[in-house]
Amino acid sequence: MNKKIYSFKNDYSEGAHPSIINKLKETNFLQQDGYGDDQFSLKAKKKIQEEIGNNDVDIHFVSGGTQANLIVISSFLRPHESVISASTGHINVHEAGAIEATGHKVCVVDTKDGKLTLDHIQSVVDIHEDEHMVKPAMVYISNSTELGTFYTKDELEKISKYCKDNNLIFFLDGARLGSALVASGLSVSDIVNFVDIFYIGGTKNGALIGEAIVIANESLKKEFRFLMKQKGALLAKGRILGVQFLELFTNDLFYELAKNANKTATLLSKGIKDLGFGFLAEPQTNIIFPIFPNDLIEKLSDKYDFYVTDKVDESNSAVRLVTSWATKENIINEFLKYLRELV
Amino acid sequence: MNKKIYSFKNDYSEGAHPSIINKLKETNFLQQDGYGDDQFSLKAKKKIQEEIGNNDVDIHFVSGGTQANLIVISSFLRPHESVISASTGHINVHEAGAIEATGHKVCVVDTKDGKLTLDHIQSVVDIHEDEHMVKPAMVYISNSTELGTFYTKDELEKISKYCKDNNLIFFLDGARLGSALVASGLSVSDIVNFVDIFYIGGTKNGALIGEAIVIANESLKKEFRFLMKQKGALLAKGRILGVQFLELFTNDLFYELAKNANKTATLLSKGIKDLGFGFLAEPQTNIIFPIFPNDLIEKLSDKYDFYVTDKVDESNSAVRLVTSWATKENIINEFLKYLRELV
Amino acid sequence: MNKKIYSFKNDYSEGAHPSIINKLKETNFLQQDGYGDDQFSLKAKKKIQEEIGNNDVDIHFVSGGTQANLIVISSFLRPHESVISASTGHINVHEAGAIEATGHKVCVVDTKDGKLTLDHIQSVVDIHEDEHMVKPAMVYISNSTELGTFYTKDELEKISKYCKDNNLIFFLDGARLGSALVASGLSVSDIVNFVDIFYIGGTKNGALIGEAIVIANESLKKEFRFLMKQKGALLAKGRILGVQFLELFTNDLFYELAKNANKTATLLSKGIKDLGFGFLAEPQTNIIFPIFPNDLIEKLSDKYDFYVTDKVDESNSAVRLVTSWATKENIINEFLKYLRELV
Amino acid sequence: MNKKIYSFKNDYSEGAHPSIINKLKETNFLQQDGYGDDQFSLKAKKKIQEEIGNNDVDIHFVSGGTQANLIVISSFLRPHESVISASTGHINVHEAGAIEATGHKVCVVDTKDGKLTLDHIQSVVDIHEDEHMVKPAMVYISNSTELGTFYTKDELEKISKYCKDNNLIFFLDGARLGSALVASGLSVSDIVNFVDIFYIGGTKNGALIGEAIVIANESLKKEFRFLMKQKGALLAKGRILGVQFLELFTNDLFYELAKNANKTATLLSKGIKDLGFGFLAEPQTNIIFPIFPNDLIEKLSDKYDFYVTDKVDESNSAVRLVTSWATKENIINEFLKYLRELV
Repeated sequence: MNKKIYSFKNDYSEGAHPSIINKLKETNFLQQDGYGDDQFSLKAKKKIQEEIGNNDVDIHFVSGGTQANLIVISSFLRPHESVISASTGHINVHEAGAIEATGHKVCVVDTKDGKLTLDHIQSVVDIHEDEHMVKPAMVYISNSTELGTFYTKDELEKISKYCKDNNLIFFLDGARLGSALVASGLSVSDIVNFVDIFYIGGTKNGALIGEAIVIANESLKKEFRFLMKQKGALLAKGRILGVQFLELFTNDLFYELAKNANKTATLLSKGIKDLGFGFLAEPQTNIIFPIFPNDLIEKLSDKYDFYVTDKVDESNSAVRLVTSWATKENIINEFLKYLRELV
Repeated sequence: MNKKIYSFKNDYSEGAHPSIINKLKETNFLQQDGYGDDQFSLKAKKKIQEEIGNNDVDIHFVSGGTQANLIVISSFLRPHESVISASTGHINVHEAGAIEATGHKVCVVDTKDGKLTLDHIQSVVDIHEDEHMVKPAMVYISNSTELGTFYTKDELEKISKYCKDNNLIFFLDGARLGSALVASGLSVSDIVNFVDIFYIGGTKNGALIGEAIVIANESLKKEFRFLMKQKGALLAKGRILGVQFLELFTNDLFYELAKNANKTATLLSKGIKDLGFGFLAEPQTNIIFPIFPNDLIEKLSDKYDFYVTDKVDESNSAVRLVTSWATKENIINEFLKYLRELV
Repeated sequence: MNKKIYSFKNDYSEGAHPSIINKLKETNFLQQDGYGDDQFSLKAKKKIQEEIGNNDVDIHFVSGGTQANLIVISSFLRPHESVISASTGHINVHEAGAIEATGHKVCVVDTKDGKLTLDHIQSVVDIHEDEHMVKPAMVYISNSTELGTFYTKDELEKISKYCKDNNLIFFLDGARLGSALVASGLSVSDIVNFVDIFYIGGTKNGALIGEAIVIANESLKKEFRFLMKQKGALLAKGRILGVQFLELFTNDLFYELAKNANKTATLLSKGIKDLGFGFLAEPQTNIIFPIFPNDLIEKLSDKYDFYVTDKVDESNSAVRLVTSWATKENIINEFLKYLRELV
Repeated sequence: MNKKIYSFKNDYSEGAHPSIINKLKETNFLQQDGYGDDQFSLKAKKKIQEEIGNNDVDIHFVSGGTQANLIVISSFLRPHESVISASTGHINVHEAGAIEATGHKVCVVDTKDGKLTLDHIQSVVDIHEDEHMVKPAMVYISNSTELGTFYTKDELEKISKYCKDNNLIFFLDGARLGSALVASGLSVSDIVNFVDIFYIGGTKNGALIGEAIVIANESLKKEFRFLMKQKGALLAKGRILGVQFLELFTNDLFYELAKNANKTATLLSKGIKDLGFGFLAEPQTNIIFPIFPNDLIEKLSDKYDFYVTDKVDESNSAVRLVTSWATKENIINEFLKYLRELV
C-alpha cells in the first residue's frame, strides 16, 4: 500500500474515470456476444470513426500497449523484415523482447529527444543493403514519446511522405496519444492522414484497460482478428473494452482527461523552473524530467513516489514525474510548496 | 443487440458479479503500483494460496485463456518439444494457432468425450521415437472440457503419476475450473497436488476478465513474469485482476457462482431428458449438448440464442446450451415450458 | 560400418554420381563469388529454366528437403495461416516440428495412400470457419509420396485448379521428384504449370546435397534470398550446389538416375510378387512396401539392411525397400535369389 | 566468371583442399547410414575429441555458420533471454535477422576492434534490471572476429570466469577459428576449457561446407540432434561432413591451411606497410583492412577483386583484403609489385 502523499510514478496509478466504472455497472447484466461482437464495441467503433471523420478505417480493441505493438508489428512484416525505432522506443527497451519473440529485429537509432527524424530513418535504411541483412519495412514512433516529447504536424507529415516514398509502413504507438494531441493541437483525424496504423491509448488516459487500434491503410485490414486471437488479445468479454471507449469518446472525455494530465504537468514544471532547476528534456506533455540535487531527491522521496532515471553528474540526477487524468491541482501546489521549503 | 429472451451461447454473456463491480468502484482512486505489484493483487495471491493450503505456489494473473495457454506452454518447452492434447482441446482448435505461433507442435489424439486417458497419452508417446520427430514434453487437459465433461480424482491421479514417471509437465487449463470442481467434489488443493501448473478461470465464472495461473512445480517458477511481459500479458493496471480475484475468493463467491452454473444446467438437462431427448455426451457441468429435431431447433432459435454444433443424422442435430453464474432458474423453467409447448 | 550385402534403407546411402564428383574436382580452384552468385549456379539455373521451358521462373538452391520445406512455407504464410498436408506428409511427421517452429500449424488429413484429393483438402477448408481457428492458405503435397505413390497429371490439374479457385498456394515437395516424373511420364515443365512453387530433389537422386527450389508464381519471388539467408540456407560455397545441378541437368543425367531407381524397384517388386507376397501399397516408384512373414524378415535382416515399418498381423509385417540411382540390377537379382531360397 | 587476376574478397572463393575432394571420391560408393550416423562422421568426431583431449565433448556437424549460430543460440535460451554480442558480430549484422527469427533479441555493444571486454558485457548486464526487459543469458564472440582480430588466452579466460560467475552461457563462433588459433598460439583444447560451446569452421578453412559444433558443457548436450533436425541442419548425406572433418584433422591439415591464410596475409600487410599505408585495425589474422587513396583503389580494382568497406576521409578509404588456405605467395608478391608500380 502506498503510504506517501502522492505517487508521480505513472499515469496508471489510479483506476478509471468514474463515469467509466458507472457505465460498466449500468450495462453489466445486458447479455452480449463475445469477442468484440457486442453492441458496445460496435457503437464505440462507430463513435471513433466519426471522431476520425472516416467510416472506412478498421478499429480493434486490445488490452494493452505491448500487446498492441507486438500484434501490429508481427501482423504485417514478412519474416526477414524489421522495424525502425528510436533506441528509447518502448518496443526496444521495455517489452522484454516481445517484438523479437514474434521473429523480427528492431533496428534502432539514437536520438536526442526520443523522436525519429528523416535523417535517423534514412541512416538505418542506408546500411541495410542486401539479403545478408534484415530489410527495414516499418517505421515505429511513439507519440507522445517515452521522454515526454511530441511530434508536430510538420514532423509527422515528413515521415509520412518518406514512408510512402520508400514503401515503409508507418505505425504510431499512441499509448499516450491523448497528451500528444492536446499538446500539439492535432486531432485523431490528422493522425489518420499521416500513418498506416496507430492506436489510441485508453489505459494511460482514464480507462481500466484498453487501446483502440485504428487501421487506415486498406491493405493492412485483412484478417486482423485472426492475428489478435492468435496472440491472446480477443477478450471473451470484449464488451468491457467497448463500454470504456464508448464512454471516452462521449462528450470529449478522452480529451478532457488528457488536458488535465498536461495541465497539471505544466503547472508542476513551471513551479520547478521558477525555483531555478533545469530539465533533461524540455517539458512538453505529462511526463517531465527535472534535474535535482541528490540530497533533495532523497528528501522528496520521503513524501512522494517517483523514479530516478538518470545520473547527471556526481551530485545531481534527473527524476521522472508523471501526472495523469486524475492528478488534482492542489496535489501539485502542495508538492511545489514542499519543494520550496526544501530548497 | 440481443433481441431474444435469453442467450445460452456462452458463460461470458453477462458482465461480472455485482460485488466485483462494486469493489472496482470502491478501490478506484487508491493509487497503486503497476503491473501486478498493487496491494490487491498481492492480497488476492495470499488468499488463493490459503485456499490452496500452500504458501509456496506462485500465482500470476493474466487476462484470458488463450493468453494463459500460450504463455504457459511456450515458457517451459524447448523448441523441439511438443504438447499432447485431445483433438477437441481448446489449444488445438480454437486459438488460431496460438501455440504453433510460439513454435510448438500440438500432438493430438481423438477421444470420445474430450478427456485424455493414459492410453491416449501413451499412444502419442509411443510414435515419437527419434530426433526426426518432435518430443512430447507436456500433457494439456482442460477441466471441465470443451464437451462439458470433467475429470475424476482417480483420473487426474493416474495422469499425474504417468507424467511424473515419464518426465512430462502436466498442465491443466482451468478456464472452467469452477464448474469442474463443483461437479467433481474436488478442491483447488486437490488439483495442485496432481498438476505442475494450472489456472483458475475467472472470465467464465463471474469476473470481467482474468485467469489465475498457479505454478506448483518449483522448477517452473523462475522468471515467469518476463514471459508474461513478453507476450503482452502484464497489465499496467494489474490491480483490476487483483481486485476481482480477491473478491472471487472472499466468502466462497467463486464456488457459489460455479454452483449456480452447474445447477441451472442440471435443471435444464433434466427437463430435456424428461421430454425424451438424448444427448451427445452425458451432461456433467454447465455445458450440455442435447439432440433435437432440426425443425424444433429452428423454432427454439426464434426465441433463444445458442450454437448448433453437430449434425447427428438427416433430421436431428446437437445444440450446445451453456448456463452461467448469472443464469436464473426461472429462465430455465421458461425455456422448458416453451420447449414442452413445441414438442 | 555396413557389414551386410546391401542396404535398402534409403536412396541416400551412397555419395554422388561419379560425374558430379569429377566436376567438383575439375572446377575446384576456379575462384568464385559466394552465396550462389558463382558462375556454376548461374549456369545451372539457366539450364533448369531451359528444361522447364520458362525463363521467368526463379530458381534457388538449398541443401536439403526439411530446409526447403521450412523456408518455403514460412516465407509466404502470414502468422495466422496454416498449410494443409496428408497426415503422412514429411512436414507433419519427420521434420521435428520444423514448420511449427516457424510459427505455423500443419492441418492434416488421413489418406489411404499418402496422396491428397480434393475431398481431403475441402474437408480441412470446411472446418476452418472463423478467426478463432487458423486459416488454411497453402496445400503441401510430396511427389512421389512418403508411401512411394505418385500423382497423375489429372490429379495435379484438379488440385491446381482448386487452389487457384480458393486462393491457396500450391506447393510440391519434390525431394523425390525424379522418380515421380519418370513414373508418371510428366516433365518439370508440366509440374511448373500446376504449382506455385516446387523443388527438384538432388540429394535423393544422385547429388551429394541439394534441392532446387523453383518459384513459378510471380508474387512469391520477391526477396526470397533474404529468407534463405535468415534460415541459414545460403551456403558460402554455393558453387557446390550449382556444379551439381549443372551436371544433373546435362545429358539428362537427372532422369537417367531416377529411371535406374524406379527400374530396379520394379524388378524387385515383380520378383516379390512372383513369390506370392502382397504389398502395403501398390509399388509405383522406388520405394516399395512388401509384406513378409516375421521369421522371413529376420532371416533377410541377416544379410540386408531395411526398415520394418508396419505390423500387419501377428505373424506378418510390412518392410520398406528403397532402391536408388546407384542400385545395380545384379544386387536385386541376388536379393531375389536369396529370398527364393528362404521361402 | 571472374576475369581478374585474383579475388581477395573472401576465404571461400575456391573449393576444397584437394585431399578432401579425393576422399569424397574414394569413399563415394560405400553405403552409409544417413543423418550423421555414417562411419566417417563417427570417426571424425573421435578424431576431434582426441585433438581436444576430451572424449566427453559432444560433436555435431552442420553446413554453415549462420546455421550453427541460430541453432546454438535458439537451443539454449528461454524465450525471454537474449544474447550479448559486439555490434559488429556476425549474428547482429549479417544473418538477416536469423537470431531474432528464432525469437531472441541480440543485445549489442560497440567495440573498437570487434572484441568484447568484461566492461562491454557488464554494461549490457547492468541496464537489464527487471522483467520489462529481456534477460541476457549468453555471451557470443567470434574468434577471429569480423575485423580480423583475435582473442588472447588471457582475454578468453576473463570472459570465461565472468560468464561462470554470472550464469551466462559462453558461446564462441569459430567460423574462422583456424586463423585465430594459429595467430594466438592456442589450441582447440584451450578453447574447450573456456567456453560452453563453440564451433570449428571448415567452410572458410579448406572444406566445401561444414562447421563442427563442440558442446563442452554437459547441461547443453541433451537432445541437440532434435534441434538440428528442426532447423533443417541434419543432412541426409551427413557423410560428406564427416569425410571432410576427418581429413581436416588428419596430419594437421586444418592447422596447415590456417597457417597459409595467416602467412600470406602477413606478407601482404607487411608489403603494404612498407609502402607507408596505414590500417583500419592492426592486421592480426587473414583479414586485413589497409587504407588507400580512392584513386589507387580504383586502379587496383581493375585487376583485383575486393570490398571497399569504410570511407576514412574525402580521399581515402579502407578496403578489406582476405587471404585463404589456397592463396599462394606468388599471388601476394605479384599484387605487391603492382601496388608498388601504382604508388
